[in-house]
Amino acid sequence: MHQYKAPIRDMQFVLHDLLQVEKLYASLPPYAEVNKELIDSILATSAEFAENEVAPLNRIGDEEGCKFENGHVTTPTGFKQAYKQFVELGLGGLASSVKYGGQGLPHSLDIAAGEMNATANWSWSMYYGLSQGAVKTIEAHGTQEQKDLFLSKLVTGEWTGTMCLTEPHAGSDLGLIRTKAEPNTDGSYNISGVKIFISAGEHDMTDNIVHIVLARLPDAPKGTKGISLFIVPKFNVNDDGTIGSRNTVSCGSIEHKMGIKASATCVMNFDNAKGFLIGPANKGLNCMFTFMNSARVHTALQGVCSSEGAFQGAFAYAKDRLAMRSLSGPRNPEKEADPIIVHPAVRNMLLTQKCFAEGGRALVYWLASQIDLLHHAETEEQRKHADDLMSLITPIAKAFLTEMGSEAAKHGVQIYGGHGFISEWGMEQIVRDTRISTLYEGTTEIQSLDLIGRKVIQSRGELLQKFTKIIHKFCEENRENKQLSSHIEKLSSLNKQWIDLSMKVAVDGMMDPEEVGAAAVDFMYFSGYVTFAYLWAWMEKTAIDQLKNQPSDSAFYEAKVKTSQFYFKKILPRAQMHVEVINGGLDVLMQHREEEFIF
Amino acid sequence: MHQYKAPIRDMQFVLHDLLQVEKLYASLPPYAEVNKELIDSILATSAEFAENEVAPLNRIGDEEGCKFENGHVTTPTGFKQAYKQFVELGLGGLASSVKYGGQGLPHSLDIAAGEMNATANWSWSMYYGLSQGAVKTIEAHGTQEQKDLFLSKLVTGEWTGTMCLTEPHAGSDLGLIRTKAEPNTDGSYNISGVKIFISAGEHDMTDNIVHIVLARLPDAPKGTKGISLFIVPKFNVNDDGTIGSRNTVSCGSIEHKMGIKASATCVMNFDNAKGFLIGPANKGLNCMFTFMNSARVHTALQGVCSSEGAFQGAFAYAKDRLAMRSLSGPRNPEKEADPIIVHPAVRNMLLTQKCFAEGGRALVYWLASQIDLLHHAETEEQRKHADDLMSLITPIAKAFLTEMGSEAAKHGVQIYGGHGFISEWGMEQIVRDTRISTLYEGTTEIQSLDLIGRKVIQSRGELLQKFTKIIHKFCEENRENKQLSSHIEKLSSLNKQWIDLSMKVAVDGMMDPEEVGAAAVDFMYFSGYVTFAYLWAWMEKTAIDQLKNQPSDSAFYEAKVKTSQFYFKKILPRAQMHVEVINGGLDVLMQHREEEFIF
Repeated sequence: MHQYKAPIRDMQFVLHDLLQVEKLYASLPPYAEVNKELIDSILATSAEFAENEVAPLNRIGDEEGCKFENGHVTTPTGFKQAYKQFVELGLGGLASSVKYGGQGLPHSLDIAAGEMNATANWSWSMYYGLSQGAVKTIEAHGTQEQKDLFLSKLVTGEWTGTMCLTEPHAGSDLGLIRTKAEPNTDGSYNISGVKIFISAGEHDMTDNIVHIVLARLPDAPKGTKGISLFIVPKFNVNDDGTIGSRNTVSCGSIEHKMGIKASATCVMNFDNAKGFLIGPANKGLNCMFTFMNSARVHTALQGVCSSEGAFQGAFAYAKDRLAMRSLSGPRNPEKEADPIIVHPAVRNMLLTQKCFAEGGRALVYWLASQIDLLHHAETEEQRKHADDLMSLITPIAKAFLTEMGSEAAKHGVQIYGGHGFISEWGMEQIVRDTRISTLYEGTTEIQSLDLIGRKVIQSRGELLQKFTKIIHKFCEENRENKQLSSHIEKLSSLNKQWIDLSMKVAVDGMMDPEEVGAAAVDFMYFSGYVTFAYLWAWMEKTAIDQLKNQPSDSAFYEAKVKTSQFYFKKILPRAQMHVEVINGGLDVLMQHREEEFIF
Repeated sequence: MHQYKAPIRDMQFVLHDLLQVEKLYASLPPYAEVNKELIDSILATSAEFAENEVAPLNRIGDEEGCKFENGHVTTPTGFKQAYKQFVELGLGGLASSVKYGGQGLPHSLDIAAGEMNATANWSWSMYYGLSQGAVKTIEAHGTQEQKDLFLSKLVTGEWTGTMCLTEPHAGSDLGLIRTKAEPNTDGSYNISGVKIFISAGEHDMTDNIVHIVLARLPDAPKGTKGISLFIVPKFNVNDDGTIGSRNTVSCGSIEHKMGIKASATCVMNFDNAKGFLIGPANKGLNCMFTFMNSARVHTALQGVCSSEGAFQGAFAYAKDRLAMRSLSGPRNPEKEADPIIVHPAVRNMLLTQKCFAEGGRALVYWLASQIDLLHHAETEEQRKHADDLMSLITPIAKAFLTEMGSEAAKHGVQIYGGHGFISEWGMEQIVRDTRISTLYEGTTEIQSLDLIGRKVIQSRGELLQKFTKIIHKFCEENRENKQLSSHIEKLSSLNKQWIDLSMKVAVDGMMDPEEVGAAAVDFMYFSGYVTFAYLWAWMEKTAIDQLKNQPSDSAFYEAKVKTSQFYFKKILPRAQMHVEVINGGLDVLMQHREEEFIF
C-alpha cells in the first residue's frame, strides 16, 4: 500500500507562485507578518504530522470502524492519541482568533495544512474539521458569555463541536425540521427531538462535545423562517468553565456506512436537553449562512484529497506493475513486460487525476484567499467583491470538485485492475470514503440549484460577471503570449458562452421555472470546466513566467505546462457536451408519468 | 429497503416484440419447440425463485461475507440452502446439453432467467455462473471420458467449476503465467503454482469443485503460445464417477474486497495437484476463446443488473421521499413537501438508469440470440455472420454496459441523498458489488483495445461494416416514419461517423501504433453510444408499431417511446465528446516523463 506524501512542492506553487500570498497577506493587517518562512514552516510541520501520525491510521480506521455500546462511541485504535498530539502541537486552531487560543493565521494557509491531514485520513480529520462549524457560529453570533464559556475550549480542540441539522425526514429541506425548543424561566431552553447523520456527535476523544442544534421555538413560523440555533453541550458547563452535570442529549446509535467508517455518524436524541439560544430567534438559517460557505469549501477540499490520494496510489502502482508491452515496442526489454505507465489509457487516467488534484488545489486555495479578503481587506468594496466571488464559486467548487474527486478515485481502482478491488491496497477505500462528499453539505443537485438560481439568476448575472470579468482581463493580458494563445482563445470563447448560457437558462426559466431545474446540474458542470480552464491557463502562464527565470526545478514548471495542455485537449471537450444536454430541454425529463417509470 | 421485482414485462418486450424469438427459435432445429408459452413459464419460475429465495439473501451476504478457516470457506447464511433448491428445480443447466442433464434451451432465454438471480443477488449468482466456463470448456474440448466424468455433475450444478487464470503477477497479461504442469507416466499431470482471484475456488455448497487451470508444460514456448488447459478436481474422481481422495489443491485464503463479499474470491495453491490436459497442448488460450465471448456477455449482464437494481431502489424512494417543492408550484399541497420525483434533476438520474437498464437488456439479449445463431443457424454463412457480430459487439457490451452500470449505481446512491451512503438502504452495496465488473473478464481498457485493435483494425473494418450495414438498413427502412425521423437522421449520421472514426484511428495507428492505444477507450464509448442509439431507435420503432394495434398496456409502449426521446436528447450528446477527445490526440498523453508526474 502506498504511503501518503504531502505534495509540498505543488502547495508552494499555488501559494507562492500563483496566489502570491506573501504579497496578499502583507496587505491584510492581521496577517502582515505571515511571510514565506512562516508559511513554509507551517507546511513542513503539518506534512510531518499528516504523514507520520495520521496517514498510518487510515486503514486501521476503515477496518475497525467506530464501536457503539450503551451510548458510548469508541474511535479506532490510535485515533485518540493522534488527536491529543494534534491539540498539543497547537495544530487545531491555526486560523482561529488568537484571543481564544488560536494562531490567527490566514484561511488560505489553514486549508493547505488541512489538506494534508484530510488526504492522509479523511475520517480522522472530520473530528476537528466539523468543530469549525461550531467555532464559527459562536464567534459570529455568540454572546460574550457564550464565547468565554465555549470558544476557547473549541478553538484549541480541547472540546469538539458538531452541527445538528438533519432529521430523519428532513435533509436537503431544512424547512421541515421538527426539533422543539421550550423556553425555561432561567433564559435557557429545553431541546427535544431526534437528529441524524451527526458527525462526531459522540466519541471518546475529548471531555465534552458542544452541539449547535437547529430547532423551533413554540411560536415559530413554519418553514425555514422559523428555525433558531441553540448551543447544547454534552456536559453542562459551570460558570467557571469546569464541567458540570450530564445533559440529556445522548447518542442512540451510529450508522453503518459505505465509507468514512472511522467517523462516528450518530443518531442524537435530545430529551429536554438544556440549550442556549445563539443569535436572534427564528434567524437560525441566516446565521448558518455565515459559515456555510466556508464549510462547503472544506467539503470541496475532500474532492482534492480524493484526487490526490488516488493519484499518488495509482502512480506508485503504474510505474511498478509489469503487464503487456508498449504498442510501439518494448520499453523494458530486459524484463518480461513493460510497466503499465507506458500505456496511453493508463496515462490518461493518471493525468486526469493529476489535473483534478492540482486544479482543485488551486481552486480551493484561491477560494480560501477570498475568505481572507472577505474578513480583512481594507475597503468595504474589496470585502464585498470577495464575498460575491465566494458566493458564486463555492457551489461550483463543492459540487464540481467532489464529483471529480469521485471520478479520480474510480480511476485509482481501475489502474490497479483486480487488485484495486481488494481492500489491502487502499484504493477502494478512497472510492468509499469520498462517496459521501457529493451528498453531505448539500448534494450536487442542491449546489447546482444554488448556483444557477440563487447566485446567477437572482443576482441578474451580477455575480457571474464579476468572475467572467476576471477571466476576460486575464485573456486580454495574455492574448499576445504565443505559448498560451490557443488556450486563451478557447478560454475567452468559453467565458462568453458562459454568460450566454446563463442568460438562455434565465430566459427559459421565465417561461417555465422547471427549465432552471432541468439545466442546473449541467450548468454547474459547464461552469466547473470553464473555471478549471481559467485556473489551468493561469497556472500555465505562471509556470511559463517562472521558466523564464531558469529555475533549478524547471521540470516542475514544464510538467505544469504539459498538464495544462492535457486539460485543454482531453478534459475540456466535456464542457460542450453539457451545453448540448441543456439544449436537449425540459420535456424529455417531465413527460413520463409516475406510473410509466416501472411496469 | 426496496425488494427486487423481476422486470418481466420489459423482458417479454425484448424477447417477443423486439427480437421475436419465437420466430427465431422456430428456425433453429434444437429450439424449434420453444414457444411463447414455454418462454413465459420459464420467466415466471425464474422470477419467483429470484424474488423469493435469492433476493432476501443479498444484504445478509454482504453483511456476513464468506468465512475462511483452515482451508475451508463457509458461505453466508442461506446461500447453501438456496443453491440446493436451485439445483433441485433444474434451474442450473437451462442452456446446457440435454445429454448431460441440461434443458437444452436457447442462450437468449437462459440469459433472461440469469438476469433475475443476478440482479437479486450478484454474489450468489456467481457460484453457478462461473461454472459455465468449466462446462463450456469441457463441452468443446474434453474427451468423451472427461465429459462423462465431469460434465453431468457440472451441468446440473451438483458440482461447481472454476476458471483458474490469474496469478499474482499476471492478470491482463496471461502470457506471464508460471504455473507448471509436469507429465506423469499415467497420462495425468502434476500441477504446481499459485492462482489468485479465483471465484468460488472453495466453498461449502457442493461435494466437489472442478478447476480449469491454465499452466505451462515443461517444454512450452514462452508467452501466450505456451499455455495449456488442465482439469484439476478438488477431489479426485473414480472411474465410476464417485468421489475419491482429496487432490492437493487448496485454498490459501480469501480476499477482503470492496464488494461481492458473499462471493468467495480465493487464493488457490496447486501443490503437485493431479490434473488432466484438456484440448491440445500449448493451445490453451485458443480453447479459452471459445467460451470467452459468452463469459463476457455474462459480465456485461452485470451492468444491466446494476442499472436495474439501482433504478428499482431509486424509483421506490423518489416517489415516497418528500423534500422541497416543485419549482413550478406544489404538486402535493396537502403534504409538507413534494415527493422528490417531481424535481428534474432526480428524474434525469432515474431516466438515465432506466435507459441503461432497458437498453442494456436489449443489447445483452440480442447478443445472446447471436450465440443461438452461432450454434444452430442453418448455413455456415449465417453462423459466421453471428460469430462476427458477437466478436465485434461483445467488447462493447462488456466495457460499455459495466461502465454504465457503475454510473447507474452512483445515481441510485445520489437519489437517496445521505441515506444512500447508509448500508441498510441497499444502494451503496450495488455501487460496491458492481465495481468489479469493469475490472474482471478484461478491464474496460483491455476490452477497448480488443475492440479497436483486434476486431476493427485487424479485420480491416469488415466486422464493423457488418454491424453498420444492419443499422444502415434499419435507417433506410424507417426514413419515412415521421415519428422516428429525427432519431433516424441522427443515427444514420452517427453510423457513418463511426466508420470514418475507425478509419481515422487506423490511419493514425499506421504512423504510430500508440495512437490506437490513445483512442481506444473513447472509441469504445462512442461505439457504445451509437449501438445504444440503434437499439433505442429500434425499440422505439417496435413500440410505435405495437401502439398501432391499440394494446391494452399502451402506457408501456408510450413510456418506451418517451425513454427513447430521453436517450437521444440527454445521453447521446456524450458521443461527440468522445470524438473531440480522440481528436485531442496522443501527444498530451505521452509527453510527461515518468519523473514529471509527482514532485
